[in-house]
Amino acid sequence: MGSSTGHLFRVTTFGESHGRGLGAVVEGCPPGLALDLAALQADLDRRRPGQGALTTPRKERDQVQILSGLFDGRTTGTPIALLFTNEDARSKSYDTVKDLYRPGHADYTYEARYGIRDHRGGGRASARETAARVAAGGIARQWLQATYGIEVVGWVASVAHLDAKVSAETVDRKAVEHSPTRCPDPEAAAAMDALIRETRRQGDTLGGTVSAVARGVPAGWGDPVFDKLEADIAKACLSLPACKGFEIGSGFAGTLMRGSTHNDPFFHDGDRIRTKSNHAGGILGGISSGEHITIRCAFKPVSTHFQTQETVNRAGEAVEFQNEGRHDPCVLPRAVPLVEAAILLTLADHGLRAAAIR
Amino acid sequence: MGSSTGHLFRVTTFGESHGRGLGAVVEGCPPGLALDLAALQADLDRRRPGQGALTTPRKERDQVQILSGLFDGRTTGTPIALLFTNEDARSKSYDTVKDLYRPGHADYTYEARYGIRDHRGGGRASARETAARVAAGGIARQWLQATYGIEVVGWVASVAHLDAKVSAETVDRKAVEHSPTRCPDPEAAAAMDALIRETRRQGDTLGGTVSAVARGVPAGWGDPVFDKLEADIAKACLSLPACKGFEIGSGFAGTLMRGSTHNDPFFHDGDRIRTKSNHAGGILGGISSGEHITIRCAFKPVSTHFQTQETVNRAGEAVEFQNEGRHDPCVLPRAVPLVEAAILLTLADHGLRAAAIR
Amino acid sequence: MGSSTGHLFRVTTFGESHGRGLGAVVEGCPPGLALDLAALQADLDRRRPGQGALTTPRKERDQVQILSGLFDGRTTGTPIALLFTNEDARSKSYDTVKDLYRPGHADYTYEARYGIRDHRGGGRASARETAARVAAGGIARQWLQATYGIEVVGWVASVAHLDAKVSAETVDRKAVEHSPTRCPDPEAAAAMDALIRETRRQGDTLGGTVSAVARGVPAGWGDPVFDKLEADIAKACLSLPACKGFEIGSGFAGTLMRGSTHNDPFFHDGDRIRTKSNHAGGILGGISSGEHITIRCAFKPVSTHFQTQETVNRAGEAVEFQNEGRHDPCVLPRAVPLVEAAILLTLADHGLRAAAIR
Amino acid sequence: MGSSTGHLFRVTTFGESHGRGLGAVVEGCPPGLALDLAALQADLDRRRPGQGALTTPRKERDQVQILSGLFDGRTTGTPIALLFTNEDARSKSYDTVKDLYRPGHADYTYEARYGIRDHRGGGRASARETAARVAAGGIARQWLQATYGIEVVGWVASVAHLDAKVSAETVDRKAVEHSPTRCPDPEAAAAMDALIRETRRQGDTLGGTVSAVARGVPAGWGDPVFDKLEADIAKACLSLPACKGFEIGSGFAGTLMRGSTHNDPFFHDGDRIRTKSNHAGGILGGISSGEHITIRCAFKPVSTHFQTQETVNRAGEAVEFQNEGRHDPCVLPRAVPLVEAAILLTLADHGLRAAAIR
Repeated sequence: MGSSTGHLFRVTTFGESHGRGLGAVVEGCPPGLALDLAALQADLDRRRPGQGALTTPRKERDQVQILSGLFDGRTTGTPIALLFTNEDARSKSYDTVKDLYRPGHADYTYEARYGIRDHRGGGRASARETAARVAAGGIARQWLQATYGIEVVGWVASVAHLDAKVSAETVDRKAVEHSPTRCPDPEAAAAMDALIRETRRQGDTLGGTVSAVARGVPAGWGDPVFDKLEADIAKACLSLPACKGFEIGSGFAGTLMRGSTHNDPFFHDGDRIRTKSNHAGGILGGISSGEHITIRCAFKPVSTHFQTQETVNRAGEAVEFQNEGRHDPCVLPRAVPLVEAAILLTLADHGLRAAAIR
Repeated sequence: MGSSTGHLFRVTTFGESHGRGLGAVVEGCPPGLALDLAALQADLDRRRPGQGALTTPRKERDQVQILSGLFDGRTTGTPIALLFTNEDARSKSYDTVKDLYRPGHADYTYEARYGIRDHRGGGRASARETAARVAAGGIARQWLQATYGIEVVGWVASVAHLDAKVSAETVDRKAVEHSPTRCPDPEAAAAMDALIRETRRQGDTLGGTVSAVARGVPAGWGDPVFDKLEADIAKACLSLPACKGFEIGSGFAGTLMRGSTHNDPFFHDGDRIRTKSNHAGGILGGISSGEHITIRCAFKPVSTHFQTQETVNRAGEAVEFQNEGRHDPCVLPRAVPLVEAAILLTLADHGLRAAAIR
Repeated sequence: MGSSTGHLFRVTTFGESHGRGLGAVVEGCPPGLALDLAALQADLDRRRPGQGALTTPRKERDQVQILSGLFDGRTTGTPIALLFTNEDARSKSYDTVKDLYRPGHADYTYEARYGIRDHRGGGRASARETAARVAAGGIARQWLQATYGIEVVGWVASVAHLDAKVSAETVDRKAVEHSPTRCPDPEAAAAMDALIRETRRQGDTLGGTVSAVARGVPAGWGDPVFDKLEADIAKACLSLPACKGFEIGSGFAGTLMRGSTHNDPFFHDGDRIRTKSNHAGGILGGISSGEHITIRCAFKPVSTHFQTQETVNRAGEAVEFQNEGRHDPCVLPRAVPLVEAAILLTLADHGLRAAAIR
Repeated sequence: MGSSTGHLFRVTTFGESHGRGLGAVVEGCPPGLALDLAALQADLDRRRPGQGALTTPRKERDQVQILSGLFDGRTTGTPIALLFTNEDARSKSYDTVKDLYRPGHADYTYEARYGIRDHRGGGRASARETAARVAAGGIARQWLQATYGIEVVGWVASVAHLDAKVSAETVDRKAVEHSPTRCPDPEAAAAMDALIRETRRQGDTLGGTVSAVARGVPAGWGDPVFDKLEADIAKACLSLPACKGFEIGSGFAGTLMRGSTHNDPFFHDGDRIRTKSNHAGGILGGISSGEHITIRCAFKPVSTHFQTQETVNRAGEAVEFQNEGRHDPCVLPRAVPLVEAAILLTLADHGLRAAAIR
């Protein structure tokens, strides 16, 4: 257990950073969907390393192969297997760290869990695993778009103390992709870019937040009391590497408000029931209201920095070490497609659940 | 789907605010546990309304009945069914709101989901449902305590802008229960108490945050990549009524740090491997490290305030209404046992999962 | 795990023979169903003991209480909790067997599984648990009937060597209920009745088979490759107490045929595609074809007979014992509603699954 | 849903007969197992076509690739992905049947389920999918053998009316593999061989039964009431292509016995509690007793025969057709490893379940 998510739109991922390959099996994608493979690859290209000065130079094409579940370009309702072969796997560069527990990483805890670990590139804990999620999320995206007109857009909302001003009503992918920071506020983007470069020079790393909006989700998705829509989105987000926090709608800031101003009044907008404000973030009682779903995720600063670190090794000795190799100083730009995938997979699952029982 | 949680320690809840009763079925509780029914009831008494001036005067004994799964005071490994009968159900007091959609509540979204709703007291969306979780969490608590010596303590960390200073290392239930606010910082507690009373007089309501710590969780619990321990705790917390945010360890504040200071250095503490700091909040890569697990949840201000509100009704008319009846001005003190239950149920499940596959 | 079945129409049962009560929680029953409580009780009355000379005189009303999930007589889409209180629980009559392992019963294996058992009346292994399934199956029956016009009819097809001749095309519940044997072939029914009475006089017990047909199941239900419709029905049947075999369509007898005669030719019956024969039993490749689904289950002779038996006790001694008390000489008539419930629950689940993903 | 099985030892399969490849993801295999790849391939070679005169000449090497989850030859506790590429895929030979519904096949029902189907070679319904199960079952076999000393042996028990005499106590794989019929009774094997050759000459096909025994399963595996061990084995068997029946222990024949002779008396065999007979088939009340688990499965005659058949096509016309190509006249020899895999996967899952909760 642990490598699958979803009940009806169900995704199982496999693979380590440096084995033969990794991928996903997507069960439950409805049949008859004409899959746009170029669009799927475009989703993946946003996640892969080597996109520019701000991210790791590790070169991976992240070229997805579809092994099953398609016939004449359409989904057949049977499992869609997605495969990425590992091409640029320099496992030797990890030999220096194979016997020690890197702070901030999962080396120690994987050994505690399994008694064994594949130390190459983080093994299963590698961020590379997220390629499989993004691919599966891309399929979910196409189904949600084609069936419901849903769009999910994420963006970098902050890097360290630098906050962006972005409207969840209007932001679109074009604006997000305009800058390599994936921050659609040009002023903030410029400052973030400078800070990331400066921090890289210092051999240090940064954290920040990603915001996202889902527009067009019909009212009535979500399964209280445990599988509330926001609960499943929260789980999907917290399962992303380095994610340490989640909020929906007014979130933590909403705790400072009074009920009389926090409640979103209902009104009739033509024949649709809407709310005048959206502190709820598009979900009430665990079920979508039809308003935009707005969330934000916190990502800790990247654990692989290049300053000297203290730790212990398997032999029980205190040691110092310093990282080498290829690593992002700031994970935020590449985290955007991950957060989108987390939301997309959750929505696809709940869309099917709502179709089954209503 | 939606009324069950957990894979091995699995809880299914049922029941509405104003039906015959509500409860839970707990599957997977290991056999042979001597269940302390008084302690279980004590957990429940912390959740129930009518505890004092700060909470709603609705009188419910929340007396739990155990229908199955016990023999001679010990669990048998078979499902433990827990039942609460509804005693003080004045459904008439809800007649005035039965045809309108209360802002901040799930009236509208339940209708969107199911096409029908039990309007009495919020039906399934009632906070009363959480009695079942607290009872199930109480069983989890006893098993975790007896088997691993784990203790989970939650407390009110803030009400509106009032923040408490509390040490996750040392806080215990006695300190928490010292004040009806469930804030173990006496100075903050006094201020919170005053603010709650003042806000009640204004017919308004408050939000805030609950923090919690789990001490004694062994290293090695959690199932990456999707069922990371913090992901499952986040889901459990976000499934609580009114919860809008979650963070673990350094959380959102951690996004302001650099990697060089955020990483927690490992060291040997006798024969145990520990970390010098705990920005991770006790979980690395989705698996417990053996350090304290520290989390915080945001709760929005209570939706049922007593000022005039605008909304629409089923007939499509804009209407104004005002709540009557019995309601908390601040849910935080009663949210403490809910957050604890969310953590306890997640830990019990992952404890069994770790036992199965290692 | 183990006390739940189904993914979307999901049933969790709880309770032992001699605790406070037993019951079920039914999740996923679609909202808006007007539940006929009298019909539900009628389903239950077919299962309960004390129906006549052929069954145990233990008196239980098996009166079902519905605790939740109904509002104004209709299902709300939230969990439906069903409760039976235990009324006629003479646990003392089991004291003579509490320290020994009854052959054919689960005394020994429950101890091996859980290290503890509730010896009263078989505890969780009691056939009384099946009341919960029949009740849940009754809800499934009403939903399947109302939504799809599906009807499921079971009957006693054999007792020991006495076989009945029954047409799966035309048999109905009235014909089944005509005789206390639940065998709709009057001649066979008379012979069975005589054999059961004779065997009871000998202090011995009988086995036999139950056949059942599901008529009106739409083509297209079933989820290959693992959750084939017949696989899930087989599991549901084999989970019934005393069930030792299952076959669908031609079953074991079909292994004697050649492919050229076993294949069911398709033809057009008006605008419907049908098959001329039905050796498949209504399912091809794990998916319903629209033809009648026909199955048969084998039930071993009742383990509680009244002749002297050898066994061992917990102290490690070889002992002899003889049963006392109230027990059926032949479980077959009361097994009919159990087999129906097994089919009904499986169909309800797959009906929802088909609605979700197609 | 439908392409996964198991809760803790969980297998998801993917792939069609004629796509790029098929395979499985095995979650939950405990870490540290030294996987014998040659033994795994040997399991697979028993299933593949082209083994001799009795089976189809289609040439597939069924060479399994392991993509993940292994490090230095040992399992790491992370998902093990298994891949078979499709090599000998002559999809053209299926063009003649692509618009008609072959009797006995799933063409019609897949269209009813999904509205679309990959007609090449049966698509997902192809028996080729079972390679993935056998591979996964092979991993289960190695874990069960290494951890518990469990061995599972299947054999052809009958072909049409020809029955074999085989002792479940002593039969081993060597005896089974001695004949291409996989019947360890030499006399019966010779007769079966002759019958299969004769039937092939007639362009017809045969059915039969496979028996299997699991030896060494500890007492205490199985999760009543729904996940009884025999119920899960039955489901796994009925999910095999062409399987129409299942029985455990005395099965259908046991319905002719009296309780006084069917019950298996317990006795002490040294310090072990055993039964003198084994009509139960090694499972009581859904939980293993420590005795041999004995089951039998019925397989219908192969649907692809070479005589002229009537059917209808998508255009609504009655048509005749005749199969061409490469097909087994009798599936039984190749069904043996499938039945073994069904049992092995179920046992591995329940072994982990028993380890988690006891």
